[in-house]
Amino acid sequence: MAARPNEARPPGPGSGPPDTQQGMRRRNLARVMHTVRAEGPLSRAAVAARIGLTRAAVSTLVDELIRAGLLEELGPDRPAGVGRPGSALALSDQGPAGIGAEIGVDHLAVCAVDLRGAVRARAVRHTANRGRPPGPVLAELTALFGQVVAEAEGRGLRPAGLAVAVPGLVARDARTVVRAPNLGWHDTDLAPFLPDGMPLTVDNEANFGALAELWLGDGTPLDFVHVSAEIGIGGAVVLEGRLLRGTRGFAGELGHVPVHPEGPRCACGGRGCLEQYAGEEAVLRAAGEPAPDENRVEVLAERAAHGDRDVRLALRDAGTALGIALTGAVNLLDPEAVVLGGALAALAPWLVPSLERELARRTAGPVCSVAVSRLGSEGPLLGAAHSVVRAVLDDPPVASGRA
Amino acid sequence: MAARPNEARPPGPGSGPPDTQQGMRRRNLARVMHTVRAEGPLSRAAVAARIGLTRAAVSTLVDELIRAGLLEELGPDRPAGVGRPGSALALSDQGPAGIGAEIGVDHLAVCAVDLRGAVRARAVRHTANRGRPPGPVLAELTALFGQVVAEAEGRGLRPAGLAVAVPGLVARDARTVVRAPNLGWHDTDLAPFLPDGMPLTVDNEANFGALAELWLGDGTPLDFVHVSAEIGIGGAVVLEGRLLRGTRGFAGELGHVPVHPEGPRCACGGRGCLEQYAGEEAVLRAAGEPAPDENRVEVLAERAAHGDRDVRLALRDAGTALGIALTGAVNLLDPEAVVLGGALAALAPWLVPSLERELARRTAGPVCSVAVSRLGSEGPLLGAAHSVVRAVLDDPPVASGRA
Repeated sequence: MAARPNEARPPGPGSGPPDTQQGMRRRNLARVMHTVRAEGPLSRAAVAARIGLTRAAVSTLVDELIRAGLLEELGPDRPAGVGRPGSALALSDQGPAGIGAEIGVDHLAVCAVDLRGAVRARAVRHTANRGRPPGPVLAELTALFGQVVAEAEGRGLRPAGLAVAVPGLVARDARTVVRAPNLGWHDTDLAPFLPDGMPLTVDNEANFGALAELWLGDGTPLDFVHVSAEIGIGGAVVLEGRLLRGTRGFAGELGHVPVHPEGPRCACGGRGCLEQYAGEEAVLRAAGEPAPDENRVEVLAERAAHGDRDVRLALRDAGTALGIALTGAVNLLDPEAVVLGGALAALAPWLVPSLERELARRTAGPVCSVAVSRLGSEGPLLGAAHSVVRAVLDDPPVASGRA
Repeated sequence: MAARPNEARPPGPGSGPPDTQQGMRRRNLARVMHTVRAEGPLSRAAVAARIGLTRAAVSTLVDELIRAGLLEELGPDRPAGVGRPGSALALSDQGPAGIGAEIGVDHLAVCAVDLRGAVRARAVRHTANRGRPPGPVLAELTALFGQVVAEAEGRGLRPAGLAVAVPGLVARDARTVVRAPNLGWHDTDLAPFLPDGMPLTVDNEANFGALAELWLGDGTPLDFVHVSAEIGIGGAVVLEGRLLRGTRGFAGELGHVPVHPEGPRCACGGRGCLEQYAGEEAVLRAAGEPAPDENRVEVLAERAAHGDRDVRLALRDAGTALGIALTGAVNLLDPEAVVLGGALAALAPWLVPSLERELARRTAGPVCSVAVSRLGSEGPLLGAAHSVVRAVLDDPPVASGRA
């Protein structure tokens, strides 16, 4: 059991870079941006009151952010001279944009989101990516990227980075796909295939879906387990408002929690994993349905909605298995909620009753709530784009050598 | 699904108190303390180099810490005047002390630990606390506390706080025992029973055991699952060097992860929980042994060491069940290691082989390591005392109005 290099002891208030004037200034710039994002439009005085700095200090920070094109003043036209009136500040909708991309089994998608969180450009292409090598898939994605960037630039936006959601495990370098079984990719560094000269982050689609839920969801708590599905079961864990990554970057693999320890063999090497009971293929098999090549979730949702008894029973049993696996997760993590997102959101009406029954039956006392994502399968793409925007808000790109 | 009051959005670089000179000074004082703790004795120049501040800035901080009795200068006698030679700094062994206490089913214990981490006073009493009401148990604990404090004060130490480890779930207020089934306590606020006028923290024994492992263990990583046992199975999760608490403060309940979903009923309301296969009572039952009233783990370890075949088989099966539950935990958390601590450490020779076999069989790729705590059943008491010491290091009590 070896400690990680350069991290021999836990981080604490005593570790990390020293506090300097420069670091303090950067954190305060971020505070202004986040305050205006959360509560704007706001006057300088209101920002100062919210973050507990003097009005003069806030004005200096605000002026820097306006010069960098990150904040803007909304009317009324302010008179020249000192003593600005309470003119309202908002995040710029002409500033940096986050570019999000998604590689799905059935589609590719790219979008641009501005600092205010609005989607300003979007392109989707339906393609069958199962078993297709990375080169052509990423060439096609790069073409969509070019299209979206041109459109965003035409609207006065400057792309600040690219974040790509993939249906698989991604290493902690945030660029290497370790395993994406449904694409057939493994140990593939995506960076050489993607546009040069722009900060790049690759992450698991369930992780980006969970972040979208955290940032955009309606009343999503700070501690939750996010469950999604494409072919397998995806999962992600958010604790205290932060995505749990784990040592290798593989945390949140709810699909491989054992449900029946001597159940069927799973591709992961285990037996009786949740995916063997609640994954799309397992549900289709249980329902006696042939597995269509594409749009499996849509097919299942449609049949269930039309009252197909076998599909409904198969989904009920999948919900039971989800409830067993989530009982373990709830005991380990004590989250405030479980959120069903991604493609699972569409199946929620037939999964949730048995899932909730199982959770209630197995956990004493007040149990965490079960919610269904409003973002559904849009979550990963939006989460990717917003992750770039968040990075700008967290460390606003303001020239450091100002007068 | 409601957001928690006053915490509507996730914390980020833009939230929290504003950066001020005063806050910066406090964080830099903590940096000096932690640097000297981790690498001392160190000269002022070495501290400055380690934390990246100027020698002059560090000298000011060090002088404050010396005046407050938190740091001391070891020889050689430094000459009067400016230009101090490289005289070495160490944490004071006459300064604040952390008082740790443990309420066990079979015993009560209190100890005092100085800033350097040395145990300077200790008192233990063997008492049968099962089913005994809080009043008399805590009166007895308070008597031990008085004894240890008097001894510590006699050695020039000043108690800085009391932390109490209990075998049960503790609310996030860090004083109320929600459920301690083996004591028979529930919804009991311990504060009124304990000495007044001293900062108090009550926490689960597995949590304090995990913190002791993090702080005192030999090469313990920053991400691990800690498994312990008294009567039931205790668990605690440390991620990125921080203890996971969860929404209600109940995170880490590995003992109630379902292992066989239709297995025997558990007191928690579930079925087939890990505790039903690997808890002390389950192991004793499986071994066909009558359950002794006290010291059950010692009895099991002794019989296994003497080659008792039934006990060994029962422990092997318990290890298998631990491996199944930990497979779920490893998939969810992706920790670097599993650490067997507390009373389980004594049973490790008979649990670990089947536990490791099960983990390896069920998880693809490099699996996290399994380690046995050297602290064993001392962990919770030491973790409690050290948690008080850590709080002093994290925010050194230095008068803020210095000249």
